[in-house]
Amino acid sequence: MERFEINILGCGSALPTTKHSLSSQVVNLRDKLFMIDCGEAAQLQFRAMKLSFSRLDHIFISHLHGDHCFGLFGLISTLGMLGRTADLDIYAQPDAEKVFRPMLNYFCSELSYRVVFHAFDPKKNTLIFEDRTLKVSTIPLRHRVPTAGFLFEEKPKSPHIVREMLDFYQIPFSQINAVKEGADFVTPDGQIVPNARLTRPAEAPKRYAYCSDTIYYEKIIPIIENVDVLYHEATFCETRSERTKQTMHSTARQAAEIARAANVKQLILGHFSARITDENLLLKEACEVFPNTILAKEGLTVTVE
Amino acid sequence: MERFEINILGCGSALPTTKHSLSSQVVNLRDKLFMIDCGEAAQLQFRAMKLSFSRLDHIFISHLHGDHCFGLFGLISTLGMLGRTADLDIYAQPDAEKVFRPMLNYFCSELSYRVVFHAFDPKKNTLIFEDRTLKVSTIPLRHRVPTAGFLFEEKPKSPHIVREMLDFYQIPFSQINAVKEGADFVTPDGQIVPNARLTRPAEAPKRYAYCSDTIYYEKIIPIIENVDVLYHEATFCETRSERTKQTMHSTARQAAEIARAANVKQLILGHFSARITDENLLLKEACEVFPNTILAKEGLTVTVE
Repeated sequence: MERFEINILGCGSALPTTKHSLSSQVVNLRDKLFMIDCGEAAQLQFRAMKLSFSRLDHIFISHLHGDHCFGLFGLISTLGMLGRTADLDIYAQPDAEKVFRPMLNYFCSELSYRVVFHAFDPKKNTLIFEDRTLKVSTIPLRHRVPTAGFLFEEKPKSPHIVREMLDFYQIPFSQINAVKEGADFVTPDGQIVPNARLTRPAEAPKRYAYCSDTIYYEKIIPIIENVDVLYHEATFCETRSERTKQTMHSTARQAAEIARAANVKQLILGHFSARITDENLLLKEACEVFPNTILAKEGLTVTVE
Repeated sequence: MERFEINILGCGSALPTTKHSLSSQVVNLRDKLFMIDCGEAAQLQFRAMKLSFSRLDHIFISHLHGDHCFGLFGLISTLGMLGRTADLDIYAQPDAEKVFRPMLNYFCSELSYRVVFHAFDPKKNTLIFEDRTLKVSTIPLRHRVPTAGFLFEEKPKSPHIVREMLDFYQIPFSQINAVKEGADFVTPDGQIVPNARLTRPAEAPKRYAYCSDTIYYEKIIPIIENVDVLYHEATFCETRSERTKQTMHSTARQAAEIARAANVKQLILGHFSARITDENLLLKEACEVFPNTILAKEGLTVTVE
């Protein structure tokens, strides 16, 4: 099984507490790290979780509220002090470069690497990043400012070669890749061995959706349908539904309703209001609608499986 | 004894570690809080030390390196969310407003209070703040960018009235303030009681000097002479004197030499390089020159006495 993990660096809402830090998490896909949001002190949590700065090349910012991006300056400085040379790619809405670049020019003018901003339109569901194994696309959300969530999808994997068949037919090393990609094997005496005898199907590609911050927003359902793990904000309980509407956040119950309607496998609740003293109330509220729910917490690593 | 404390929020150098946070401290003078420097996550440490946000009105920034000021944005946002209405006064070199204001305009456009920048010339030793009980002046330092330390000085206090004398002469309430301010007391039958019989002298005003970041710089000695507590950066040990010069920092020994030459009462070392694994080496190096030295650490409160 190839590694696909979500590391929670911070899951508080705008007002940090002694219990919760500001929004940030790191998706670890086969030891490449992808940061989602970068609230203040994200770099400290990153280090505390013993993640490797040199494996981080891409940062996705959901929206330009300070609790989701004020940690960028410190992180960018630190990467410079660590002698980084590779580009750092930041995906955010178009304003980001305009507001961050002057600060970087002033404070980080001697960086040993480039910070490259990639603007996306948070109103559209579009592919914003892909490499050999991963696609990342935006999930339009509704909040007080333009906001997008992110869908991380593994690309389809090659089937597994059945070791015993490899030995039995003495398939030469040079042909293994072809077999992995679906070719039949022809033995030296002309016998055709169909690919299906030589391989077993790869695991289904795994998918992770990050949705924060947002009101209850049914339009995301078709985009996140059937994902393995959904992180959905749950800033408040249903008892504070007025405040939820006013601040354009979601309740735990609403997060669970989205999870159920989208038929996801697991739900992680996060972005907890500083006023919540007992998060088990959020968990209880969500589990009544969608039982396979857990609470995010700082330092937690969730395996997508 | 009136409270005069230094709370260490962070005492690492530019690269934070799991052990040390970024530069920030809070001077508590009679329950008014004055922040010096505001590195990333200062607000989190502030909360962890159970300091009261509503008692913080003044922030002094030594220089515009990120590790001394990137925490401002988060702190300013948080104060807004807490419903602050009083002005927040920030004392820094002239560039500060130019670089911070656009960020505040973007991220904190709906603040319930004003952020007022007060520019000072870091090359001059000048009074930049005073109120009824305190004076704060700049200490010109030498670093890679314009930098100033800060001298916190209590104003002279009124003498104490000797309770027994108050009773013995039945001094009326209305005259107590006059006596406190040095007046003699005249009894109803015309006897003059000299002030010295009625009072005992106040404690000497206490003084605290913060010097970070700086090279070994003897010109500060007359400014900080005889202070009760000196916080002086000690980024490296003498074994790394080349690196110390190159980055324009000080060694622990140099900090101690300044402390000894200035005849201070106590020295606190801080701003430790991330490369230092055993800070006791810094302490040992300093103590050889100036024995009354301690190491800063996060969460430490030092009483100025």
